[in-house]
Amino acid sequence: MLHAVIMAGGSGTRFWPASRNMRPKQLLALSGDRTMIQSTSDRLAGLVPLERQLIVTNRVLVEPIAEQLPMLPKENLVGEPAKRDTAPCIGLAAALIASKDPDAIMAVMPSDHVIGTDQQFCNAISAGEKLVVDDPTRIVTFGIRPTYPAESFGYIRRGNSIGSDGDVKSFLVNQFREKPDRETAAEYLATGEYYWNSGIFLWKASVILDALKTNRPKMYQHLATIADAIGTSNYQRVLDEEFNAIEGTSIDFAVMESYPNVAVIEAPFEWDDVGSWQSLGRLRESDEHGNTVVGDHVGIDTTGSIIFGDPDHTIVTIGIEDLIVVHTKDATLVAPKSAEERVREAVARLKESGRTDCL
Amino acid sequence: MLHAVIMAGGSGTRFWPASRNMRPKQLLALSGDRTMIQSTSDRLAGLVPLERQLIVTNRVLVEPIAEQLPMLPKENLVGEPAKRDTAPCIGLAAALIASKDPDAIMAVMPSDHVIGTDQQFCNAISAGEKLVVDDPTRIVTFGIRPTYPAESFGYIRRGNSIGSDGDVKSFLVNQFREKPDRETAAEYLATGEYYWNSGIFLWKASVILDALKTNRPKMYQHLATIADAIGTSNYQRVLDEEFNAIEGTSIDFAVMESYPNVAVIEAPFEWDDVGSWQSLGRLRESDEHGNTVVGDHVGIDTTGSIIFGDPDHTIVTIGIEDLIVVHTKDATLVAPKSAEERVREAVARLKESGRTDCL
Repeated sequence: MLHAVIMAGGSGTRFWPASRNMRPKQLLALSGDRTMIQSTSDRLAGLVPLERQLIVTNRVLVEPIAEQLPMLPKENLVGEPAKRDTAPCIGLAAALIASKDPDAIMAVMPSDHVIGTDQQFCNAISAGEKLVVDDPTRIVTFGIRPTYPAESFGYIRRGNSIGSDGDVKSFLVNQFREKPDRETAAEYLATGEYYWNSGIFLWKASVILDALKTNRPKMYQHLATIADAIGTSNYQRVLDEEFNAIEGTSIDFAVMESYPNVAVIEAPFEWDDVGSWQSLGRLRESDEHGNTVVGDHVGIDTTGSIIFGDPDHTIVTIGIEDLIVVHTKDATLVAPKSAEERVREAVARLKESGRTDCL
Repeated sequence: MLHAVIMAGGSGTRFWPASRNMRPKQLLALSGDRTMIQSTSDRLAGLVPLERQLIVTNRVLVEPIAEQLPMLPKENLVGEPAKRDTAPCIGLAAALIASKDPDAIMAVMPSDHVIGTDQQFCNAISAGEKLVVDDPTRIVTFGIRPTYPAESFGYIRRGNSIGSDGDVKSFLVNQFREKPDRETAAEYLATGEYYWNSGIFLWKASVILDALKTNRPKMYQHLATIADAIGTSNYQRVLDEEFNAIEGTSIDFAVMESYPNVAVIEAPFEWDDVGSWQSLGRLRESDEHGNTVVGDHVGIDTTGSIIFGDPDHTIVTIGIEDLIVVHTKDATLVAPKSAEERVREAVARLKESGRTDCL
């Protein structure tokens, strides 16, 4: 049976002041009226019912996510005892799913990406499921056709074609590549053989656990101890102790880069990782002056700007160009688009000066 | 006896969003911790007690001003029934003061200017009082030494010296000039004989009423009818009817420009009319990057900017220069200093679109 694992542990600071420790990007409605995690769950509806959706997040976010997804069964929302990167997160999810459905196939995905249509996404996932049914030890990744030489993504080099299923083309994976510099990224782009690594994966739960057993025996041992405690009164204590003891690492590093049987599906959907305020300019319609506006805005001689506020607060801009203006109840950000990477600096500065109230 | 009249009817929009219909500039703490009208009243303390301070404003502001000056006797706070420019305002104040003290001398001043030290101001007013005691039909103006060819002020050309009293120099007035263009203003400046008209005046109440009687007999008739009703049960009704019937005009136009016996005192105090957000850069200390900050601000690579918010709201700016950022509970303004004159456009736009809630 197909299960979905939504990874929702991110605590990005790039969308400060809209994003906060208790309200990171996946809990924001950046691209539309629904929040990113709501859209991620909605998107699966035709393929994986809520009963088979598992959300793994950090503990402080369990409550806010439950509020946003009130119909999700409570036991399907898991708070990690500690941040340990993606491999332990995925291992835990696999152990939980395998304990109920030993033969389960699981699709793993981030909670904070924007994806074309739900149908396109579900078609791609279904195509991945077939690849695993055909060859149960196979693991499947989803690659995004790059549109520019991005330095902020890992890359996947495709090998021979495995075939196609409707619009969905599949290939063997030749190689995984970590985030390149711009020049290397441009070379990748020129070959036409590279995809961005979307962070969306699909495999049998038992297969990914076996792969972890082979590649990361210590991590596997902790996960196996947790799995043994599932359903017992010790579970929470064992989870805390064992998960905390795991050495954190990414699933790419722990498994993907060395696993011998990986396929890549060329994503037949639009994709955006919504990496920064400028993303909003791509994801939302802009006005006739190239401004992307959320909330109440009066712009005079204002062009190419991102204005993000709320309906009860009027933002007036006069004579500005390519500026980001974000209003929230207790904080305002003003920065040119070109400086948006430096939002992290501002967040660091607030942290240093003890202004945790607005982090 | 010396009385003071503080004119507080202004409803400027230049300080939007901090200034509102119900909270114009004179009710804001722009230059320090006290609001402009509080500072104006405080400044007189050594010379004119609250009992002899009369504040004339528009009716919607009576309540907010009373809150800011709780010790001011209630009867000393007058709400004009209508906006009729400065001549009727001053005429009404003169009638009210003369009814209690027929021999009164009155100093008239705006409520929204920043002035050097209280002592300097009181010295200048006392010097003016002496000029009127020496020559009771004289009216006295206060001129500001111009520091640049301003187009936004009227000018006073001085004539022969009348003498000096300590630091305070007095002259006959040669001529009043309305707001000039830049070229003319530069010529004025070059002569060294021109002052900016500060809008601060001093005279006997009976003398200014006589001058209005001569120059504006219709206006005087309305004022006389109001004066006759003072202390009667009809007063409020008569005030409403008669004041509304007055044709509005400025005291400069109605009296100053034609009155034969006008002196000008060269103001021995610093003076600023706080005309716009940029004024704050002159009136408040700036940080080491030339930013003028009110409220909580974190600036990264931020220079020459005016940041005006409140202590409970953090404004973060990154990579900006010469920008004005103003935060209030329900509205935010972002504009380069060079565009600040266009704040009026924004206010007009809000008015047109029915957004009276934030005006």
